[in-house]
Amino acid sequence: MPVHYTLGQLAELLGVECRGDAATVITGLATLAAAQPGQLSFLANRQYLADLRVTRASAVIVAAEFAGDAPCACLVSAQPYLSFARASALFDTAPAEVAGIHPSAVVDPGAELAADVSIGPGAVIGAGAVIGEGVCIGAHTVVGPDCRVGAGSRLHARVTLYHRVRIGAQCVIHSGAVLGADGFGFAPGPQGWEKVHQLGGVWIGDGVEIGANTTIDRGALDDTVIGDGVIIDNLVQIAHNVRIGDGSAIAGCVGIAGSAVIGKRCTIAGGAGIVGHVEIADGVHVTGMTMITGSIAERGSWSSGTTMDTTRNWRRNAVRFAQLDKMARRLARLEARLDGLNRDKDNDNSEAHKV
Amino acid sequence: MPVHYTLGQLAELLGVECRGDAATVITGLATLAAAQPGQLSFLANRQYLADLRVTRASAVIVAAEFAGDAPCACLVSAQPYLSFARASALFDTAPAEVAGIHPSAVVDPGAELAADVSIGPGAVIGAGAVIGEGVCIGAHTVVGPDCRVGAGSRLHARVTLYHRVRIGAQCVIHSGAVLGADGFGFAPGPQGWEKVHQLGGVWIGDGVEIGANTTIDRGALDDTVIGDGVIIDNLVQIAHNVRIGDGSAIAGCVGIAGSAVIGKRCTIAGGAGIVGHVEIADGVHVTGMTMITGSIAERGSWSSGTTMDTTRNWRRNAVRFAQLDKMARRLARLEARLDGLNRDKDNDNSEAHKV
Amino acid sequence: MPVHYTLGQLAELLGVECRGDAATVITGLATLAAAQPGQLSFLANRQYLADLRVTRASAVIVAAEFAGDAPCACLVSAQPYLSFARASALFDTAPAEVAGIHPSAVVDPGAELAADVSIGPGAVIGAGAVIGEGVCIGAHTVVGPDCRVGAGSRLHARVTLYHRVRIGAQCVIHSGAVLGADGFGFAPGPQGWEKVHQLGGVWIGDGVEIGANTTIDRGALDDTVIGDGVIIDNLVQIAHNVRIGDGSAIAGCVGIAGSAVIGKRCTIAGGAGIVGHVEIADGVHVTGMTMITGSIAERGSWSSGTTMDTTRNWRRNAVRFAQLDKMARRLARLEARLDGLNRDKDNDNSEAHKV
Repeated sequence: MPVHYTLGQLAELLGVECRGDAATVITGLATLAAAQPGQLSFLANRQYLADLRVTRASAVIVAAEFAGDAPCACLVSAQPYLSFARASALFDTAPAEVAGIHPSAVVDPGAELAADVSIGPGAVIGAGAVIGEGVCIGAHTVVGPDCRVGAGSRLHARVTLYHRVRIGAQCVIHSGAVLGADGFGFAPGPQGWEKVHQLGGVWIGDGVEIGANTTIDRGALDDTVIGDGVIIDNLVQIAHNVRIGDGSAIAGCVGIAGSAVIGKRCTIAGGAGIVGHVEIADGVHVTGMTMITGSIAERGSWSSGTTMDTTRNWRRNAVRFAQLDKMARRLARLEARLDGLNRDKDNDNSEAHKV
Repeated sequence: MPVHYTLGQLAELLGVECRGDAATVITGLATLAAAQPGQLSFLANRQYLADLRVTRASAVIVAAEFAGDAPCACLVSAQPYLSFARASALFDTAPAEVAGIHPSAVVDPGAELAADVSIGPGAVIGAGAVIGEGVCIGAHTVVGPDCRVGAGSRLHARVTLYHRVRIGAQCVIHSGAVLGADGFGFAPGPQGWEKVHQLGGVWIGDGVEIGANTTIDRGALDDTVIGDGVIIDNLVQIAHNVRIGDGSAIAGCVGIAGSAVIGKRCTIAGGAGIVGHVEIADGVHVTGMTMITGSIAERGSWSSGTTMDTTRNWRRNAVRFAQLDKMARRLARLEARLDGLNRDKDNDNSEAHKV
Repeated sequence: MPVHYTLGQLAELLGVECRGDAATVITGLATLAAAQPGQLSFLANRQYLADLRVTRASAVIVAAEFAGDAPCACLVSAQPYLSFARASALFDTAPAEVAGIHPSAVVDPGAELAADVSIGPGAVIGAGAVIGEGVCIGAHTVVGPDCRVGAGSRLHARVTLYHRVRIGAQCVIHSGAVLGADGFGFAPGPQGWEKVHQLGGVWIGDGVEIGANTTIDRGALDDTVIGDGVIIDNLVQIAHNVRIGDGSAIAGCVGIAGSAVIGKRCTIAGGAGIVGHVEIADGVHVTGMTMITGSIAERGSWSSGTTMDTTRNWRRNAVRFAQLDKMARRLARLEARLDGLNRDKDNDNSEAHKV
């Protein structure tokens, strides 16, 4: 049976004001355009105001200024998107993991498990691992020796933690993520690359979310460190000894090279790259597919690349990019010639006056 | 024992004309350059015409216009590459999966499996999952609760489907792919990011191929939708609520941000990025590593970036890129000055006439 | 108990000169800044000379010229970073895999295993696979039919080898890597894309390291080939029929398209892309996030893209990029006009002389 709440209950749970019939029963969430009677929607962006005016939702979460535009009951919130996020938790019907240890799981006798953990089919827990209260470990997830997983954290199916990876409390780690693989460290030797063994670990703070198939390498000597409340999307590569400050957000397909230090509350958009050994201040924003090649000392937004164009136009301009330095020199030469001409003209004029 | 066909059988199976000895036995496929007697090759690109003329293959698939260049028997096809693709299916000797359910698989009693499925070692099938006829589920693949996998589809080893993921018929999903992980949705709250629970699902059409370690997130409220016949390469990130139209092709390392809508029969080359909430028309082509930052209303090809150069030259020009706006202003100023000079000259000339 | 060596033992094992008390006991490695008494550090980059002068390490690996700057015992090496790499192997305390075959592993009776292999929980070894001496196969790793894994190689947890993948000796393959999935080959047919079955395999040389969640596709007809001593970082995509020469290094998030041939000892920095069917000479370096769109005939360094800037400045310049061809034409026109003016002036002057 689906979840349901009355509007009055929701107002109380979300800490917002109810305008309309508090007894209205809400059975789910939907966008303004797709909502049906019985559903709750929200307006977080005034771009969708036209949708609000014709929504079939039974109620909407809105800021006070737009409550008058709603054709239905309202939950009036100072931060509608935040209230919607909290409502989404109430209506989440994802199946709960079964408590207990699946008989096919392989738990080392030297691992320490809280009483109420959920360990899925085929999960492997190594010697010396410590699994906190309420932790869920998904099917076929491998937790290496001497790892720690803090209370309330959830590792979905098919995650790998190598040895000595520390996960804080209340984290979510998605399927396919690999934490603690060797950093990419090699020294050139007489017969080719020689491996620098990676002796550090990985330290993940509390309340961190890590996306599917993301990789976070262990440190060479010190740990790779992800601060509290950091959110990381899918297919992100975080190299050895990177440090990411609390509350930063890293979107999909970002690559961060070794020993880069990212500040707190930074937002790195999709596909961006950050070279190694740089320091990025708190609150920096990096736009999509930008390459950060140096340190950034102050908050602000940074970009690189060129804007999209038709391939036909782009090709014409891209050819010119390779001539840009020459164009700049030609431009400077023209300026000098024109300055010369003017000087000549002034001289001519002066001479003319003499005439 | 390897597969073998006579040339006559192949002509019939491929629906093409046989020129040469129909009794010739063919035991495999090879490129024109590498082919040995007993093998079949093909010419799909006239760039390889020189290779055709000296190939040791026993037969080649060619267009009629090049049949005369072949030193061997020919299978004459109006579409040689398509005929080759079909021949590749005949000579595929990949080991078949064993039918039946491996004893180490963990199948929930509430799952519904067709009689002839193949479920590999350690595979996990959740409650309420429905697995169609002839489906192969590889080793350690995890199919979450309430998923549906259509007839004839194959999930290779180590795939994850979260709950409520729908796969159509005749799909191929490669190892490490993760479908239905949470979309990257968070609202900024007073104590940091608050998760927007992702209540939608993933809907994959029929005849879709999804590459290794590709990730397709579940929708926030509605489903993420991949149309029929879409082909997706490795390490592609498809965010929540993306919709991809029938027959589109997405090459490796592409990232598509949330709620982007891609048309039918689009081709997105490797490493390209598409920002969220844009609409791309049918038949659009995006070149490699291009960033698409806005909607595209009509078919056509789009690009961004700069062309490759030696680092020495590139550096000179890249420095100028940062001066480009100033250069444009200087250029405009020069034009104005020159216009001024000409006006002066004309005036001088007029005055001269007055003299 | 942690590893420990005397400085004298280390000097002998590393083949370097000991200056100071050879009886000093070393229990671990650390950076110059973080080192504590009892630890060994190193100076490989003179940028850290200030750290050397105040390090608390009991000993440091240094070049002879900097030995005088160390406040502690020295291991004097002509190649300090290489000596450090070798020391890192001595101090690696990663837990060893348990020898033997875990009871939950699924080993086909037709597979051939050396006597001393280690096969982890849930690992699957297919029919006809040959696993060499001292090989470690991690938990839930799937080795397909007819694969070969050479002596001393280690496949970490959750690796997939499809059928007929050949791994050389002394390789390391990290968690989540997928080798031998189908190349992305499709022919356009009347009803949409038709799959080109991928009949080749994957051939990996000796001493190769492959990062977490990296994908290497099988060849269409011939094999995809990775030479001896190649090192590949995380989340790299290597398409069908790519060939990479011995000793090349590929950093994270690189994508290499089908049939590209990379020379020996190339270094491809993070996020770069290489299009299909190109040939790259030995010793080529590609800088981060560069797109290589053509063949490169000689060693050298190549780049593309633009440098980072504040978004505000970048936007001004990026707008001009789209006008670049027009700017170039305006520049040429200005030059012509100025040449014309000068000619006129010369004429005027000549005429003036006539006066």
